Amino acid sequence: MTDIITSSDAAAKLIDGKAAAAAVDAAAADGARQIEAALGRPPCLAVVLVGDDPASQVYVRNKGRRTEAAGMRSVEHRLPADVSQADVVALVQALNADDGVDGILVQLPLPAGLDETEVVQTIRPDKDVDGLTAQSAGALVLGAPGMRPCTPSGSVFLAKQALGDLTGKSVVVIGRSILVGKPAALLFLAENCTVTLAHSRTQDLPAVCRQADIVIAAVGRPNLVKGDWIKPGACVIDVGINRVEGEAGKSRLVGDVDFDQAIETAGFITPVPGGVGPMTIAMLLANTVAAAARRAKVSVPDSVKDVLPG
Amino acid sequence: MTDIITSSDAAAKLIDGKAAAAAVDAAAADGARQIEAALGRPPCLAVVLVGDDPASQVYVRNKGRRTEAAGMRSVEHRLPADVSQADVVALVQALNADDGVDGILVQLPLPAGLDETEVVQTIRPDKDVDGLTAQSAGALVLGAPGMRPCTPSGSVFLAKQALGDLTGKSVVVIGRSILVGKPAALLFLAENCTVTLAHSRTQDLPAVCRQADIVIAAVGRPNLVKGDWIKPGACVIDVGINRVEGEAGKSRLVGDVDFDQAIETAGFITPVPGGVGPMTIAMLLANTVAAAARRAKVSVPDSVKDVLPG
Ligand SMILES: NC(=O)c1ccc[n+]([C@@H]2O[C@H](COP(=O)([O-])OP(=O)(O)OC[C@H]3O[C@@H](n4cnc5c(N)ncnc54)[C@H](OP(=O)(O)O)[C@@H]3O)[C@@H](O)[C@H]2O)c1
Ligand SMILES: NC(=O)c1ccc[n+]([C@@H]2O[C@H](COP(=O)([O-])OP(=O)(O)OC[C@H]3O[C@@H](n4cnc5c(N)ncnc54)[C@H](OP(=O)(O)O)[C@@H]3O)[C@@H](O)[C@H]2O)c1
Repeated sequence: MTDIITSSDAAAKLIDGKAAAAAVDAAAADGARQIEAALGRPPCLAVVLVGDDPASQVYVRNKGRRTEAAGMRSVEHRLPADVSQADVVALVQALNADDGVDGILVQLPLPAGLDETEVVQTIRPDKDVDGLTAQSAGALVLGAPGMRPCTPSGSVFLAKQALGDLTGKSVVVIGRSILVGKPAALLFLAENCTVTLAHSRTQDLPAVCRQADIVIAAVGRPNLVKGDWIKPGACVIDVGINRVEGEAGKSRLVGDVDFDQAIETAGFITPVPGGVGPMTIAMLLANTVAAAARRAKVSVPDSVKDVLPG
Repeated sequence: MTDIITSSDAAAKLIDGKAAAAAVDAAAADGARQIEAALGRPPCLAVVLVGDDPASQVYVRNKGRRTEAAGMRSVEHRLPADVSQADVVALVQALNADDGVDGILVQLPLPAGLDETEVVQTIRPDKDVDGLTAQSAGALVLGAPGMRPCTPSGSVFLAKQALGDLTGKSVVVIGRSILVGKPAALLFLAENCTVTLAHSRTQDLPAVCRQADIVIAAVGRPNLVKGDWIKPGACVIDVGINRVEGEAGKSRLVGDVDFDQAIETAGFITPVPGGVGPMTIAMLLANTVAAAARRAKVSVPDSVKDVLPG
């Protein structure tokens, strides 16, 4: 297997999200085989795609491909952009009721006019492989079993690859969204980190950042986090994905961290692309295996337990 | 009305929790009158007390007294310590179904042998005035409408009395329990504070504390937080309630903060007793009025909206 942590020419080691995702995909595939042996069928993920946003179509295609590559069943439901709210909810309810479906993912954003919150909240908590329902969020706060959101889970996985046990590390999470920042904070807390949540109203963000052993940037501002915001040797997990104008009018992707600067001070850093990005689907696959196991009341395969956060 | 913020002989002003609780009780009473005018009946709080723990009996008696003093209906259900799990759950289900009941509170801890989590999770989210179900915790994370836990809500109220708008303040919450620390962190985050969650695995807690504009101590260790852990002028909210041996063998209550030291450096401080303690029931009353309003689909009275956190 490819190394996840690799050296660079600068101070920081690189955390290779592609290699890490491949390892998690392999763990999910191993788990899927065990589920199939136990249940006579592999875990099944149903994805709901409404409308024809090109980016969403790419994501959904990738999800389907990696689900099948991991030996699981992938089902796609496509609805037109002008579908009614009631019809989307009815589809989710049908998937809730379908015993052959283990995980349900509604690709976000939904087209304007649809109530995203209602649709997401319709998903049964035990099939909520995206971890976005109130029940899942509540379980995360309470430390109860449940589905954890995928991108934050991937961030924890990468930090552990770099640092091992995270107990006592100070973590600064920049960004407090429902999708990334808040669940990431709660997951690092569950790893016994001292966690600070920062956001647009934070005073002197550079100074706050400079205290962190681990910086999680989940803001959506290209190159916001500068090299001198990073404590020497710290681990930098860059969740941001921003499209900026590159050379010759071509666009390219950058993170929320000024990578060229931060790599000179950090101890570990994720690139963008190829850092946190690939981890999201990997954790989705792991969650789907866990969902299939829990629903069938068989134990979650160890390979999957090992990659999911606590 | 009595002043909530008063001077002391030392550096810090005192935050008078009794006066603050009286103000919140009055707001709840005002709200209860409006609910009664709209519905033809006052809000109703049902309290379930299992067994005969003396401290729990005192709490339940106080709750009943203050509920009625605020013009609301208080119903108490007492069950023997050897009641079955099924019977406790059945009682909660009956209260869930009873349209005349707006709020349900199960007095914790339950006697050994009963599954507290299952009992609490049985409470309908719209009647969960203690804010302890997974749904309520999830709503707090998602920023969705819902019941917020009472002691953390009281802590936010006191900090606002001292400092006004909390935007941009740095808050350190010591303790990460489900009951106090975690919800307090999420509530201060919703007030646009930069929030750090510290706990028993935190490295160099004094240094972490010293950076805070607001310190929330929710640990359960008498006098843990020393005076030199407090940034000059900071606001100290002491949630701890610890019984220690006092003079002449008599026991007395102290907080988690060394009050005599901290009052010399802090800008504001809550005493123990008479600080956060009285706020818990006050917020319970406010939550009960809000529950009654939301269930009846009338708007939450402004007096109550003003005292509840966001
Ligand atoms: N790798 C992946 O698979 C993946 C998955 C999801 C998201 N992402 C990327 O992650 C980034 C964040 O996504 P999101 O959904 O969490 O975004 P979001 O919902 O827009 O939240 C952004 C957060 O950043 C904060 N913020 C904005 N400007 C700031 C500033 N100047 N300083 C400090 N904080 C600031 C905001 O604070 P306020 O709350 O105060 O407004 C908010 O909490 C985006 O680039 C997104 O594309 C990547
Ligand atoms: N005013 C009120 O109405 C009210 C209401 C509820 C509670 N309280 C009081 O508030 C206090 C806390 O209650 P709780 O229910 O939250 O207690 P809890 O469930 O026992 O939680 C205590 C927290 O403190 C942390 N902790 C323990 N020792 C520590 C240390 N030396 N340094 C830093 N952190 C430490 C623990 O960390 P770990 O997680 O790492 O173990 C844990 O997160 C108690 O005194 C309780 O009586 C008052």
